[in-house]
Amino acid sequence: MGAGQPLNLFDYEALAEARLPAPLWDFIVDGAGDRITLAENRRAFDRIGIRPRMLVDVSRIDTATTVLGSPVEAPILVAPSGPHGAIHPHGELATVEAAARAGLLMVATSGSNRTIEAIAAAAARPLWMQLYLLPERPRTEALVRRAEASGCRAIVLTVDSPRFGRKERTLRSEDDFDWPAPANMADLPPPTAPSLRGAPATWADVDWLRAITRLPVVLKGLLTAEDAALAVEHEVAGIVVSNHGGRQLDGVLASIDALPEIVGAAQGRCEIYLDGGVRRGTDALKALALGARAVLIGRPALWGLAVGGAEGVFEVLQMLKAELAMAMALAGRPTLASIDASLVTPISGR
Amino acid sequence: MGAGQPLNLFDYEALAEARLPAPLWDFIVDGAGDRITLAENRRAFDRIGIRPRMLVDVSRIDTATTVLGSPVEAPILVAPSGPHGAIHPHGELATVEAAARAGLLMVATSGSNRTIEAIAAAAARPLWMQLYLLPERPRTEALVRRAEASGCRAIVLTVDSPRFGRKERTLRSEDDFDWPAPANMADLPPPTAPSLRGAPATWADVDWLRAITRLPVVLKGLLTAEDAALAVEHEVAGIVVSNHGGRQLDGVLASIDALPEIVGAAQGRCEIYLDGGVRRGTDALKALALGARAVLIGRPALWGLAVGGAEGVFEVLQMLKAELAMAMALAGRPTLASIDASLVTPISGR
Amino acid sequence: MGAGQPLNLFDYEALAEARLPAPLWDFIVDGAGDRITLAENRRAFDRIGIRPRMLVDVSRIDTATTVLGSPVEAPILVAPSGPHGAIHPHGELATVEAAARAGLLMVATSGSNRTIEAIAAAAARPLWMQLYLLPERPRTEALVRRAEASGCRAIVLTVDSPRFGRKERTLRSEDDFDWPAPANMADLPPPTAPSLRGAPATWADVDWLRAITRLPVVLKGLLTAEDAALAVEHEVAGIVVSNHGGRQLDGVLASIDALPEIVGAAQGRCEIYLDGGVRRGTDALKALALGARAVLIGRPALWGLAVGGAEGVFEVLQMLKAELAMAMALAGRPTLASIDASLVTPISGR
Amino acid sequence: MGAGQPLNLFDYEALAEARLPAPLWDFIVDGAGDRITLAENRRAFDRIGIRPRMLVDVSRIDTATTVLGSPVEAPILVAPSGPHGAIHPHGELATVEAAARAGLLMVATSGSNRTIEAIAAAAARPLWMQLYLLPERPRTEALVRRAEASGCRAIVLTVDSPRFGRKERTLRSEDDFDWPAPANMADLPPPTAPSLRGAPATWADVDWLRAITRLPVVLKGLLTAEDAALAVEHEVAGIVVSNHGGRQLDGVLASIDALPEIVGAAQGRCEIYLDGGVRRGTDALKALALGARAVLIGRPALWGLAVGGAEGVFEVLQMLKAELAMAMALAGRPTLASIDASLVTPISGR
Repeated sequence: MGAGQPLNLFDYEALAEARLPAPLWDFIVDGAGDRITLAENRRAFDRIGIRPRMLVDVSRIDTATTVLGSPVEAPILVAPSGPHGAIHPHGELATVEAAARAGLLMVATSGSNRTIEAIAAAAARPLWMQLYLLPERPRTEALVRRAEASGCRAIVLTVDSPRFGRKERTLRSEDDFDWPAPANMADLPPPTAPSLRGAPATWADVDWLRAITRLPVVLKGLLTAEDAALAVEHEVAGIVVSNHGGRQLDGVLASIDALPEIVGAAQGRCEIYLDGGVRRGTDALKALALGARAVLIGRPALWGLAVGGAEGVFEVLQMLKAELAMAMALAGRPTLASIDASLVTPISGR
Repeated sequence: MGAGQPLNLFDYEALAEARLPAPLWDFIVDGAGDRITLAENRRAFDRIGIRPRMLVDVSRIDTATTVLGSPVEAPILVAPSGPHGAIHPHGELATVEAAARAGLLMVATSGSNRTIEAIAAAAARPLWMQLYLLPERPRTEALVRRAEASGCRAIVLTVDSPRFGRKERTLRSEDDFDWPAPANMADLPPPTAPSLRGAPATWADVDWLRAITRLPVVLKGLLTAEDAALAVEHEVAGIVVSNHGGRQLDGVLASIDALPEIVGAAQGRCEIYLDGGVRRGTDALKALALGARAVLIGRPALWGLAVGGAEGVFEVLQMLKAELAMAMALAGRPTLASIDASLVTPISGR
Repeated sequence: MGAGQPLNLFDYEALAEARLPAPLWDFIVDGAGDRITLAENRRAFDRIGIRPRMLVDVSRIDTATTVLGSPVEAPILVAPSGPHGAIHPHGELATVEAAARAGLLMVATSGSNRTIEAIAAAAARPLWMQLYLLPERPRTEALVRRAEASGCRAIVLTVDSPRFGRKERTLRSEDDFDWPAPANMADLPPPTAPSLRGAPATWADVDWLRAITRLPVVLKGLLTAEDAALAVEHEVAGIVVSNHGGRQLDGVLASIDALPEIVGAAQGRCEIYLDGGVRRGTDALKALALGARAVLIGRPALWGLAVGGAEGVFEVLQMLKAELAMAMALAGRPTLASIDASLVTPISGR
Repeated sequence: MGAGQPLNLFDYEALAEARLPAPLWDFIVDGAGDRITLAENRRAFDRIGIRPRMLVDVSRIDTATTVLGSPVEAPILVAPSGPHGAIHPHGELATVEAAARAGLLMVATSGSNRTIEAIAAAAARPLWMQLYLLPERPRTEALVRRAEASGCRAIVLTVDSPRFGRKERTLRSEDDFDWPAPANMADLPPPTAPSLRGAPATWADVDWLRAITRLPVVLKGLLTAEDAALAVEHEVAGIVVSNHGGRQLDGVLASIDALPEIVGAAQGRCEIYLDGGVRRGTDALKALALGARAVLIGRPALWGLAVGGAEGVFEVLQMLKAELAMAMALAGRPTLASIDASLVTPISGR
């Protein structure tokens, strides 16, 4: 293998930075405030020690699972994220093609630069659609109907963004940044007021959303046991433990640090996923050990997209899948079912 | 927003440093000894994790409250601090004008470069006056009478300065520093001895002070549960948990680390405020969660004063108010009453 | 003593780096993934505080002990490791000669660049042989037979390598690296498939190995109490607590952090050794205090080999022996029997 | 005060380094091994938070106390240390003159470059003498007799040096270092063998020493509760909790971290002192809070000696006394008797 070839996701990060215009790069890697949560998302993984088992038969590693019934080749999803169209001319079509080729599931955003219909067509596999509650329910409902019609298997409602977090690195450079238009918004009923992404949603809105669609509803952005208990009470199908990649409220817990209390509160009554800082197969393994059914990666997919379009995203996903399989083998956990909390322990003094 | 425009309080710090003469700057940012407490005041905030709640109705954020009955638009006060007159020709008049415009309350110092009467007139809002016990009670009492006559709503007695802390960075440069005269001292009865600011006060002095005035008395500078219990016993109206911005005894606890035991000991029988290291809306939010009724900012107001006079102070205060409102929205705590200790938790391993 | 003379093992590290070609050096010092475990192997020792006893008679320090009945002058073994032949033309012959001269025991690898017979002849002292389970039992058994015939006193089965860890520093430079051939493989029965070092072993393989040889079997690479309990159940003679020098699964515990639970689980029913990060006599002392019977050093022996062949390895071993004796004297523990867990305590806050 | 004037002990350190030849400087500041204990001696102080009390009458601060009955103006002693004669032509005479002028007590070493008689004459105040057990009891006893005859008030037996710690920074440069002769050794009975400083002492030697002299015996270098209990059993008069400035066994606890268990074990039956890392008045205050009767400073006295002879040492001592008095005032502890364990608490997360 040549010395210049990317060997891990961080290599893709460096390559992507070199290719993208600075304001776009700033936007992608930014975090809110002093970026403490952004840093903690990574550091918290590194504070978790692995307790590997030996002499287990690991001749066959099986990473396949399902998420809300949809099969995936590994417990790794592509997180919803913004600027696919700004990064690559094929936008979300490239990303979803890569996810499908890798046997994984992508969560498209309602604000995507390509229509959900086009993304679903390119996927040729199960797809989920992320949603911000729009100020007008008819517009929101229209998005849900299009997701249903396109064959999406779940609606992921982002609930951590009643306002958008203040990202100062972005603010310092954004005057040069040309954001492509959200494709799905063009065909919606007209807004009653200047459209606000991220209108404040409440549990009543969750109930409304569940009432208007038969698709399972996943809440993205919960960080506490209290909210997980409410989520179960409101009969959601899943929770993405997430701090929005450290982009909303600085100082909130790393998602991996919030995971255990959410798993404990959910008591197996909905699926729990995690995003935030997953960069290594061992990060995914740690999240699985602490009760996540799958992890989502956000920025790394964008890095792959910047470096090589669909091929780049595919390589990133394959790399992470391979690292997870390797980690499972070396940890003596050949199946997802064999991964439990005894696999991890805090590293003392770190 | 232009790249050069200040986006947070740290930006004002950098701008102020560039404008002020070095000895004055050294004096403002200095701390006692090895500046461990100065650093801890900031680090301790960063060790506190936020547990945000989602799907709460945060369409309206209400930061308004009262401090000892005086209404303020947010639980943020301007701390008493020295060299307003050295920083800007308008001195405290600029600062208090900004505080009033921001709907906030300023604590003027008895050592201010403008008279308390002038400051009160410029405030056109409730004002508190800080006091060091002077060696002669008649002089101290004269100051209290002037505060009363000017309409001050409380006396804040600084109790952590029986001697003034040794600030070595200041000592290394102070020969060039031209300190403006304290305006209030000129009209007082003559001192019996060379005036010593910060004569050692005792609980008997607190009782005496309470006896000579109907204004509520606030003690500034307590850091222990033991002293908080005594404060309640001596029927003070409020406590400012403070280590004097790390300027008195190096090594004492960060004020946010001392807050919980003081809140616990006071048992709601007096109001508890906090200063020391508050630079972000999330810092204020953490202090409120741990039981503070309000926070005070000291150095950041001086930075604003240096950068833009009254306008600069106003921008600093508005920025912090906006950050607090944003933090409350993103944490799912739309009112001050909804903020409680469940909002925070130590970040493990940090 | 001249300023340029090596005073500790780290000096040998620096000297070796200057002498060896970069790709070989990269291979030797590399660790898996983000090299967190590699770093933790060292940091974890530094977090352990020593509680020395004074006024004990330490006029005579006795470091001599036995490992599985073989006498050694100190509880320090030479760990099995790869590229002796690439580092020095005499390869393992130089290393074993040094170990023998130092009164210590070497664990030769089955993949050594010299035959086990030649190494045993050069040793003229007890020798152990490390083994990876080969995919074909007859080939594995042939290696065991040769070890027996050569007079090896134990078989050390490496059990942490069902796959080989991904070492990225190595991958970035290995195209230039010329690996010498494993000498023992030439004379084995032909492989049934392209030979895979590190075929996944299971407890059944351990039982098989124990059944085909009367040599005691030591398992190298256990890190959990659960596996230690199984090891005892499967009647192995010893356990090397090891994470393979941080080269297999990144994020696993430092070996010294894993040691206590393994010692606890083994309950004295087999001997426990440790490798990973031992660079100082005090590191060895800490491991002994936590229940290890001996420590193994890997990379430092290679550094000595690079710097001075057999003489270099000898100096490294003598240095570590002397440091251990000094540490025992200064800790008031003149014999190995006097070393117990009361000698160590975590350094608070480190 | 001019910007160039030393404001604290660290300033003296910098000034001394600039004046002394490198090999001598290396010897003075060196520590054993990787210098972890050397660093911990300082860091451990910084991890201790102070809980200051307010509104206490601190108009008069009283630092005066006694050590084994000898009055001192502050609980600060000058630790025994080596190279006074190499640092300044007046050697120990300068140091003891400064200590006496500061109203403090010096512990002279038996290896001093001036005779104990000369030092005692210069002191004109109580003096203690430190002792290493020499291999021959008659020579040791001769030293004790001279201490008695010179009016020394106690014998401080260093017990942590059965061998001398390996200081690598010193080893790398010592070939240039010219060590002045120990003055006291010249007049002793001839050695039976080449003189070994630091012959291994045992508790039997402690009993012997106590038996041959009526002077109180202090043991310097204990770090554990076990040894403190034995010290009490062997009826010593005092214990210096010390790790020899980090110069003996690297990795042992910081002396301030070892202090509490020793105070607990001694149960007030002998006096407890501490050396190791005391550089600030707050360090002394923390040690007193944790039960030390006094602290000793070693290197800082040498820095003062290098910078200004007796005057330099005097300034260092006065500075530390002033810092302690200031710390007591600001902590609301005007007398030594008012200092207790409630004054300190660990800084969380540091």
